[in-house]
Amino acid sequence: MSDLVFSVQGESASAAKFVAKTRNFTLVVDEPENLGGTDENANPVEYILAGLAGCLNVVGHLVAKELGFSLKKLTIEVTGNINADRLFGISTDERAGFKKIDLKLIPETDASIEVLAQWLRIVQDRCPVKDNLLNSTPVNVSVEKQYAVQ
Amino acid sequence: MSDLVFSVQGESASAAKFVAKTRNFTLVVDEPENLGGTDENANPVEYILAGLAGCLNVVGHLVAKELGFSLKKLTIEVTGNINADRLFGISTDERAGFKKIDLKLIPETDASIEVLAQWLRIVQDRCPVKDNLLNSTPVNVSVEKQYAVQ
Repeated sequence: MSDLVFSVQGESASAAKFVAKTRNFTLVVDEPENLGGTDENANPVEYILAGLAGCLNVVGHLVAKELGFSLKKLTIEVTGNINADRLFGISTDERAGFKKIDLKLIPETDASIEVLAQWLRIVQDRCPVKDNLLNSTPVNVSVEKQYAVQ
Repeated sequence: MSDLVFSVQGESASAAKFVAKTRNFTLVVDEPENLGGTDENANPVEYILAGLAGCLNVVGHLVAKELGFSLKKLTIEVTGNINADRLFGISTDERAGFKKIDLKLIPETDASIEVLAQWLRIVQDRCPVKDNLLNSTPVNVSVEKQYAVQ
């Protein structure tokens, strides 16, 4: 299969609010007031956790079907810790992003514990978002200055 | 500063649709029909790109303020390539997630090119989401079986 290309374009609505478009959809990202935003929607790192959970849901259902069991429901809880000192320029002692992410998958299913263990191993290997968090992904950034209109 | 903790909880609405809650917000993740979904909202990897762009917007404004210039607007375009063979269990030749992510930041500003180069360097160092993509992040997954109610 050839590569799939995904893209998002958007612009700042304020210092912390970003309105992103992808295909027919609009995704609004903001920050709570204590992080400088207007708290109109989830913040960037919550988007990452939601994307990770959503991805595990898709792959979880796909692999369950392959293994021949049904998932009546899949509940996912995900939590991540960040020390914001680097973000705010206070120190460089810690990394900027999540130090770790903890996930709990709660499948409602008749599958045995042994089958679920196999399922978990395969799901983790094939989940795109988990791969991008667990392993290094090249991120190339360029800047194109737009001259302010007087 | 002590760590900040972010969390998302949600459940499958279908094999590809996931309804996530974080604080007061609901984030719906789905897939287009050609990836098995009902195309009601952006998909998991688009959430990652939107979170990355939203994060660069926040940090971009923060650092511009520190460097003493104003951003009238910040436009961000982000694209990522994925080969879906691993996701679909066709082969393990390629990684599951984005092979690379390309970003273009288009600031509308009076800042000089030299100041923008400094800005870009600092923004990239301090952006949480960029850190989590560029560098490895531990992701711990546990499963807690919920017995199907008869």
